[in-house]
Amino acid sequence: MKRIAVLTSGGDAPGMNAAIRAIVRKGIYDGLEVYGINYGYAGMVAGDIHRLTVDDVGDTIARGGTVLYSARYPEFSNVEGQQKGIEQLKKFGIDGLIVIGGDGSYRGGAALSKLGFPTIAIPGTIDNDIPGTEYTLGFDTAINTVLDSVDKIRDTATSHVRTFVIEVMGRNAGDIALWTGIGSGAESIVIPEMNFSMDEIVKEIEDGRRRGKKHTIIMLAEGVMNGNEFAEKLQEYKNYHTRVTVLGHVQRGGSPSARDRVLGSLFGYNAVQLLKEGKGGLCIGISGSQVVFNDIIETLERKRDVPYLSLYQINKEISF
Amino acid sequence: MKRIAVLTSGGDAPGMNAAIRAIVRKGIYDGLEVYGINYGYAGMVAGDIHRLTVDDVGDTIARGGTVLYSARYPEFSNVEGQQKGIEQLKKFGIDGLIVIGGDGSYRGGAALSKLGFPTIAIPGTIDNDIPGTEYTLGFDTAINTVLDSVDKIRDTATSHVRTFVIEVMGRNAGDIALWTGIGSGAESIVIPEMNFSMDEIVKEIEDGRRRGKKHTIIMLAEGVMNGNEFAEKLQEYKNYHTRVTVLGHVQRGGSPSARDRVLGSLFGYNAVQLLKEGKGGLCIGISGSQVVFNDIIETLERKRDVPYLSLYQINKEISF
Amino acid sequence: MKRIAVLTSGGDAPGMNAAIRAIVRKGIYDGLEVYGINYGYAGMVAGDIHRLTVDDVGDTIARGGTVLYSARYPEFSNVEGQQKGIEQLKKFGIDGLIVIGGDGSYRGGAALSKLGFPTIAIPGTIDNDIPGTEYTLGFDTAINTVLDSVDKIRDTATSHVRTFVIEVMGRNAGDIALWTGIGSGAESIVIPEMNFSMDEIVKEIEDGRRRGKKHTIIMLAEGVMNGNEFAEKLQEYKNYHTRVTVLGHVQRGGSPSARDRVLGSLFGYNAVQLLKEGKGGLCIGISGSQVVFNDIIETLERKRDVPYLSLYQINKEISF
Amino acid sequence: MKRIAVLTSGGDAPGMNAAIRAIVRKGIYDGLEVYGINYGYAGMVAGDIHRLTVDDVGDTIARGGTVLYSARYPEFSNVEGQQKGIEQLKKFGIDGLIVIGGDGSYRGGAALSKLGFPTIAIPGTIDNDIPGTEYTLGFDTAINTVLDSVDKIRDTATSHVRTFVIEVMGRNAGDIALWTGIGSGAESIVIPEMNFSMDEIVKEIEDGRRRGKKHTIIMLAEGVMNGNEFAEKLQEYKNYHTRVTVLGHVQRGGSPSARDRVLGSLFGYNAVQLLKEGKGGLCIGISGSQVVFNDIIETLERKRDVPYLSLYQINKEISF
Repeated sequence: MKRIAVLTSGGDAPGMNAAIRAIVRKGIYDGLEVYGINYGYAGMVAGDIHRLTVDDVGDTIARGGTVLYSARYPEFSNVEGQQKGIEQLKKFGIDGLIVIGGDGSYRGGAALSKLGFPTIAIPGTIDNDIPGTEYTLGFDTAINTVLDSVDKIRDTATSHVRTFVIEVMGRNAGDIALWTGIGSGAESIVIPEMNFSMDEIVKEIEDGRRRGKKHTIIMLAEGVMNGNEFAEKLQEYKNYHTRVTVLGHVQRGGSPSARDRVLGSLFGYNAVQLLKEGKGGLCIGISGSQVVFNDIIETLERKRDVPYLSLYQINKEISF
Repeated sequence: MKRIAVLTSGGDAPGMNAAIRAIVRKGIYDGLEVYGINYGYAGMVAGDIHRLTVDDVGDTIARGGTVLYSARYPEFSNVEGQQKGIEQLKKFGIDGLIVIGGDGSYRGGAALSKLGFPTIAIPGTIDNDIPGTEYTLGFDTAINTVLDSVDKIRDTATSHVRTFVIEVMGRNAGDIALWTGIGSGAESIVIPEMNFSMDEIVKEIEDGRRRGKKHTIIMLAEGVMNGNEFAEKLQEYKNYHTRVTVLGHVQRGGSPSARDRVLGSLFGYNAVQLLKEGKGGLCIGISGSQVVFNDIIETLERKRDVPYLSLYQINKEISF
Repeated sequence: MKRIAVLTSGGDAPGMNAAIRAIVRKGIYDGLEVYGINYGYAGMVAGDIHRLTVDDVGDTIARGGTVLYSARYPEFSNVEGQQKGIEQLKKFGIDGLIVIGGDGSYRGGAALSKLGFPTIAIPGTIDNDIPGTEYTLGFDTAINTVLDSVDKIRDTATSHVRTFVIEVMGRNAGDIALWTGIGSGAESIVIPEMNFSMDEIVKEIEDGRRRGKKHTIIMLAEGVMNGNEFAEKLQEYKNYHTRVTVLGHVQRGGSPSARDRVLGSLFGYNAVQLLKEGKGGLCIGISGSQVVFNDIIETLERKRDVPYLSLYQINKEISF
Repeated sequence: MKRIAVLTSGGDAPGMNAAIRAIVRKGIYDGLEVYGINYGYAGMVAGDIHRLTVDDVGDTIARGGTVLYSARYPEFSNVEGQQKGIEQLKKFGIDGLIVIGGDGSYRGGAALSKLGFPTIAIPGTIDNDIPGTEYTLGFDTAINTVLDSVDKIRDTATSHVRTFVIEVMGRNAGDIALWTGIGSGAESIVIPEMNFSMDEIVKEIEDGRRRGKKHTIIMLAEGVMNGNEFAEKLQEYKNYHTRVTVLGHVQRGGSPSARDRVLGSLFGYNAVQLLKEGKGGLCIGISGSQVVFNDIIETLERKRDVPYLSLYQINKEISF
């Protein structure tokens, strides 16, 4: 292994730069040359590839987004695209690849591994929806960003008598809504992993009002439905002076949290270590305080445990 | 003057608590009794009035929202309501009132003054749309909150090739959009005070793309139209991968900025001073570093100068 | 079990309020009466004990510090003090206790358990120095607070040619320095768990300067020595335009991070659960995504694993 | 005027990048070439000068510090140094200069103007101690940074019974201490512009304790004395469990506030405008909502008004 490359793919996530920085520096520390691929798999196929130096990643650890840019590129599911990508890498003499992203990135990485190109995948997405790791890169920052916003909304909610529906990201996963629901003391949490009944939510609001609660916060995962749709259904019961906030792309940005910087550094460091040891076809994860490695393909087929799903029940008992 | 009261009305704004705190403490320092009225004019008419102590406002200066709650109460435009309100105040022996809020609050204060009840108005709204002051309480915090979000969106904007339309508050005023457009380096600013042409905006985007800009941020004041409507009109020209973010109620909350805490303290302190001097029917403002006083009624009739409207032209010359 | 009580002791930590809130609400949800003890063990002995309602903990989850106040009270190591404390609890009919704090709090809890009073301990300290848990309550917030400050210092470090020594808390543990050293990309990390050589640090600075680095950040745990002492030793080698920043009590405050809010909720909820099941003499911890329980006395005797000590070596390879 | 240059000098301040960005873009918009000088006057004399493009200042408006680096260079008070600097500028064909910084920068700018080189000065320092402007660039960010820290300290102060002495920057000016003292509700503010008596401060603490206050915050400007010295003097009266926090260089960093971004943009834009009109020897300031221009030399001789000194008295009446 002489030359390795790194790309970021799919939605960007805070901490991706920490991982890129660790890859570049650990690689150079170990005597490797490290290349960056712009715009994910699209850039790989197009040959948008350049050498990275220690300076290129200087002062990036605190920055959101990804200095390698990202793009979705569904065309990469096609085997011709994959072979074209490998050709491009070989043109640069690159013999190992690290991909950072969500499940699309993992599928790309699995395909390259099947074609014999050593590839390591790092889970980078705010959604926390990747099997093989307790946390994905970006999740911790995203939940802190959401809470920061909800704390502000709570200020104004407390000043009036209102119901706030807050739609958060997460694709088909409820992790962001679950953690931020607990963290904000939301009266109700609505996530795809759990059936919900509007009757019950209305009952929770009414119970709260009876006990003197002036405002209600409902944390809604986008995977269930969108915020306006939810609010309309709620208003059918009664006029709760409902306000909807869709937090949107704010959730993807921001300077990464301490955890995401450390996690990114750990992931990047270990990815280089694996390639150096001649390993490929693996994805990296964190379990407790251990960095763990799994087969990408098997991991993609696995159903993810939602480790903290008990939080859902806990919230019912402490946020009434 | 022995007893004075304070209320907050309309949308809440960060810094209202700093003003309430200054009123309570300056009042007590001067030997007055200070009463708080909950829920604005609605609470005044309903008699939701209680004595405030130094402790009641302890550790509130850093908090968003208003500890006196707020409400809109259009019924107060009715003279019977106003007289009912004055009766309630007299029941408590209150002989001077301070109202904190936007133009609705000012109109209430003007009406009470006309009926002979000494009333001082403090401009408290994030919209910065009140004549007689360069800045309203809450505006500075709101623009910092908006920038914090836009900086995060820019992270993700920079990582992809996209156009972001960011809808901000301000009712019929463009101040929030103007300041945060400058402050975020937005490529375009769209405000009600200035005609805009979609042709020109499209030209600005295209010019930027030609020079290598990967992303575009358009700051849109809600007073022009809503973000989704704007994005649709823009997409009619070309697919700019437009994403809309409606920042919403986040803008009203948050711990007040340094300016809003100082401004709230200055306003509150001076309002008590005026009542003590037997004055009423005035509204307070800031001009440069001077606290100024104006007749409420005249002020309501005046058209507001938008002091920094030149920022609009400046942005065209520095954010191309 | 009919009545339980909760106290916070030692240095306060963000997330304590989330734990108190969960204890109060989960207790009431389960039909218990919950009492708060002010000022830790000192308040227990003095009988500073009062009933807590759901409202008392409303809107506290986002607040730093502890609503029950905290105090150090070394006199509690005395068995008479402990018996006096138990008497006070019995006067109120309290038959179970939850203590939140660091090792002093644990020792108090162990003593009460030995005397037969059912006590559960929750690890609450920013220092992360308690055995039996991967993370203590407050650590995550503290490292984010430190990084926020170091990011600001880096702005000004980058603008000049300077060396910054940043002294962070942690008592005898290096966790805060280690995590924030990684997270800020500090060139050197100095912690009590690892010997350091000033010669080596000087070599790291010189190597960096040779490669064009303009500034150096050294993260120093207070357990090694204080920042000014360190800077003096460094300046003996050469004038590195060294600036010392002692972050101090800022590290203990602030709105808790998402993690600390969730962790506090989990810990508080489970502590009530344990008391309800008639258990005592236990301390709560987190391991991966599992809440775990250990005997307090055994835990106090155990040496703590520093789970991420490998970060120390990793930093050498990625922050040169 | 074909080519202009810009430098930053003295302590860096948030907002300097916003000013540099506006200068570069407004200059290019007007058909000028814009050069950056690294490391202030030292870089000018050394010829560390380079052309700046629109891209060089892309995504810098939100960043603290200065992309042109800064340095103190007392040797520039020497006329030979000044002439050497002018020679260097002429070598690059530069015929107008903008300097951003504090009084040292102003003196340099005045000297260059006397020697016939058109120079415009922009007030950039967190200390707010420059005559000819109500606010300097960086002051608003600094006071928000300080308040953020003091709010955190207050969390922990409230949890114990303690007295906190917080030393803030400002050189010989008390502006930072004054504004943040008001903004944090500090019980006492100690600034160089006002005599203070330790007897009176002790009386304020004792009065507060009598009324049930658990903690005291004293905001101390570095221009009076340092925090530890102050605390020792205070402890001579009585053990107030005093803790000292020296906020230090954190105050200089951080993403600029909304105001500082707008102010920097306004200042930079107008500086280019003045040079284009053939003017030099001026410094820029803000007064109310107007940008104002003054003669640098006269301004340096003028005594600064401290516009908000009345805040000192106000705080005594609202923070008892």
